[in-house]
Amino acid sequence: MNGFDRFKELQKKQKAYQLVLGIASWDSNTEAPKACFPYRSEMLSLISGEYYALSTSEEYQEIVNALHQDPEDLSEIQKKEIRKAKKDIDKILPIPREDYVEYSRLVNLSQREWEEAKAKDDYDHFKPYLEKIIGFRKKMAHQRDPDAHPYNVFLDDFEEGMDMEKYDGFFRIVKEEIAPFAKEVLAVKDEKPPEFMVATYPRDKQKQFVEYLMDVLAFDKNRGLLKESVHPFTWNTHSKDVRFTVRYLENYLFSSVFAAIHELGHALYEQQVDEMFDMTNLKSGASMGMHESQSRFYENVVGRSLPFWEAHLPKLKKLFPRQLKGVDAEEFFRAANRVDETFIRVEADELTYPLHILIRYEIERMIFEGQIDVDDLPAIWNKKMKQYLNLDVEKPSQGILQDVHWSTGMFGYFPTYALGSAYAAQIYYTIKEELDFERLVREDDIAEINRFLKEKVHCYGKSKTPEEILVALTGEPFNPQYYARYLKEKYRDIYLK
Amino acid sequence: MNGFDRFKELQKKQKAYQLVLGIASWDSNTEAPKACFPYRSEMLSLISGEYYALSTSEEYQEIVNALHQDPEDLSEIQKKEIRKAKKDIDKILPIPREDYVEYSRLVNLSQREWEEAKAKDDYDHFKPYLEKIIGFRKKMAHQRDPDAHPYNVFLDDFEEGMDMEKYDGFFRIVKEEIAPFAKEVLAVKDEKPPEFMVATYPRDKQKQFVEYLMDVLAFDKNRGLLKESVHPFTWNTHSKDVRFTVRYLENYLFSSVFAAIHELGHALYEQQVDEMFDMTNLKSGASMGMHESQSRFYENVVGRSLPFWEAHLPKLKKLFPRQLKGVDAEEFFRAANRVDETFIRVEADELTYPLHILIRYEIERMIFEGQIDVDDLPAIWNKKMKQYLNLDVEKPSQGILQDVHWSTGMFGYFPTYALGSAYAAQIYYTIKEELDFERLVREDDIAEINRFLKEKVHCYGKSKTPEEILVALTGEPFNPQYYARYLKEKYRDIYLK
Repeated sequence: MNGFDRFKELQKKQKAYQLVLGIASWDSNTEAPKACFPYRSEMLSLISGEYYALSTSEEYQEIVNALHQDPEDLSEIQKKEIRKAKKDIDKILPIPREDYVEYSRLVNLSQREWEEAKAKDDYDHFKPYLEKIIGFRKKMAHQRDPDAHPYNVFLDDFEEGMDMEKYDGFFRIVKEEIAPFAKEVLAVKDEKPPEFMVATYPRDKQKQFVEYLMDVLAFDKNRGLLKESVHPFTWNTHSKDVRFTVRYLENYLFSSVFAAIHELGHALYEQQVDEMFDMTNLKSGASMGMHESQSRFYENVVGRSLPFWEAHLPKLKKLFPRQLKGVDAEEFFRAANRVDETFIRVEADELTYPLHILIRYEIERMIFEGQIDVDDLPAIWNKKMKQYLNLDVEKPSQGILQDVHWSTGMFGYFPTYALGSAYAAQIYYTIKEELDFERLVREDDIAEINRFLKEKVHCYGKSKTPEEILVALTGEPFNPQYYARYLKEKYRDIYLK
Repeated sequence: MNGFDRFKELQKKQKAYQLVLGIASWDSNTEAPKACFPYRSEMLSLISGEYYALSTSEEYQEIVNALHQDPEDLSEIQKKEIRKAKKDIDKILPIPREDYVEYSRLVNLSQREWEEAKAKDDYDHFKPYLEKIIGFRKKMAHQRDPDAHPYNVFLDDFEEGMDMEKYDGFFRIVKEEIAPFAKEVLAVKDEKPPEFMVATYPRDKQKQFVEYLMDVLAFDKNRGLLKESVHPFTWNTHSKDVRFTVRYLENYLFSSVFAAIHELGHALYEQQVDEMFDMTNLKSGASMGMHESQSRFYENVVGRSLPFWEAHLPKLKKLFPRQLKGVDAEEFFRAANRVDETFIRVEADELTYPLHILIRYEIERMIFEGQIDVDDLPAIWNKKMKQYLNLDVEKPSQGILQDVHWSTGMFGYFPTYALGSAYAAQIYYTIKEELDFERLVREDDIAEINRFLKEKVHCYGKSKTPEEILVALTGEPFNPQYYARYLKEKYRDIYLK
């Protein structure tokens, strides 16, 4: 057996472990009964241990290193598989096993403590854990690359190729162009939501509408499914098993509808990755940011557009004739794009959303610059909320404690959320040139848009970088100016005409 | 580390593999999308291979053998764990690995071919596969124990301690007492089902009633859940994760109601196994027959009783006032115990059910006696159907091809179905003495019956044999006379008074 065949064999075994761990996690997050978790956690940690051992075994390392040094006989795709494998190994190996174990224990514990702190609105309760996690992350960054800026190590983990310099450029646009523009729009916002936005919409019919949306967006039901969970998410093991979840709030129809379209964006991406990558480490979307670009594109560009509701409001009105009586597509479209200052990121509208991310990026940057004491974090957070969103944070649960990410050590993740929206805008301007976008949406032919995105983005999986995809598709590397332009055009049209 | 501790460590790892394979199989059987199976099967076979390797590793064998030979320092429970482990090893080891692999491939294939043969009503299509499977089973029985009768090897696999001699005694009662009695009852059966039995009952309300039944039978929803699937089944990984499924037929309410109570019987058993066995090979019910005794007890003895419907028909009528208008508990009870000649085992009533099993037992016995050619199987089947149920089989799908079991090599399984009903009858006569059974059912206090069965049957898991459980509970070993007596008393009362 030659080296690459043996590499594939070892990879396949790793994939098998990923599959069973993935199915278990899907089960845990959607239906597993409460009482099963102590037993399950203990057992799954054994399987995770086996997986860890496989993916760091000496034989595997040797093969990957050998193929990495001498890739002549490999095809282009095979070279990319080896490159990815090498990078994954280099990420884990420098961390001593005992640090790895202690860190896993710490983040498991911290997540529970964060939950408690948030429930009690008590930052001090969470503070010691946050401090330890930050300490650990700094140490791990140093172990992995003593010469790199620690924040850059993690920014690259979540979005290959990104670093502080690039993000600084991006967030400058957010701060200097989008923030002032948002202020203009917020000055003339609709003070109250229209009545149909806060009416009661029974769960079962909301579900029917989401099932209808699955067809509208051409989700392949043979290769996936819809389920319910507390926090909506998309899950997949390969291109033929892609699932997503929704939560139905009876007094907030807009939440489930747009969360569904958002997750459908993620799901379509995964269903359209070429099946040749199913058994490789190049399956699944190119990066966090590129993934988010697709979910945001379907949610905001397609789903929150006037033509979309010209096409689909009639169906929604059939399901909810009383609640939507007299409402037209124009009104519904405006409600779907209502802007407002909010404390909570996940409830923010499309326009103010990047400001929430800006706050987090600036704070994370300070943390890894070492300029900051965890004691001061809440005050810093609150000051930035005042600066960018003119809100006075009154309790940590609506400020510093609102997100789970830091409690699980995920520093460097937040920026990809805003980046995704910005990618989406850049892609949108190309699509408008290449396709008759508004007509396709209005005439319920989103499958045509899917086909375009499949060919240009989805089919490649991880075999192209976000940058390669953007350049090939839009003719230029990432350019955040499109994002500012898109938001200004859209919201000027709705609010400032 | 001493030998037993190391044994527990190796066992625990095996349990971890069982858990992830179990969760994957639950997912496959309840919701996994169609297209995912080729990838999934390939990946899961790798994980199964790992599990096989663990459970047959030399280290594991050595430890088990050593502890088996020198068990002095072990507690009684530990001795039983070792005994069970030894038996499991002895079951696998004599089969050469290449036979094991080829056999697995054959039964996977045969199951699909059986499905096709059944759909096409073409026995000849299935015949060559059946012949190969029988050949393989005979060979494997010989490999495992050249001195034993091959059928006895498999009878013991499915019900430890049972053999042809014991089953012959049991089925003699079925043939000589139950069969003639059934004939008497069938002679005066109700020719047509009452109208409410075949009315339409919307799915959602059927589901509400099954959820109500979960509370009636005191199923712990924190430690399990209800879901839907094509074939109802119960699934569990340990006492704190026990799930069951139901299928709702809108034009046959009785099917989902009694299937639900049946599965709830299995599920209650599993929830009531002592948690001390969760991490051991003694978890889960004592045997197939003992398990079936509990499902049949709850389904037939509790669920198809008059007091049960005196207590719960009002709830059902609230859900279906139109369909059940004017129906009283007495009529409902009679309908729930309607007898009829049927071709299909799974549709049979409680009284004729053992005749279906008798036919299968007699045929399996002949197969392993070597007295039979697969060419003749359909004719033999049909003759027996005529003899015991006075029915003329017109096509193999309503005769020899109806069940999946043989296509998967499960010879020796069927008898446990009838055995379970017989255990249930024997247990019932003790319960009637020890508890005020009818009052508890009528007054909706089934939890009291659960507590009794927990203490006498469920809590032990596999740490006692069926025989030990029966003797301790009823004062005597298995005695099939109780079964005949139970059926005669019940059906005489309904039909022959």
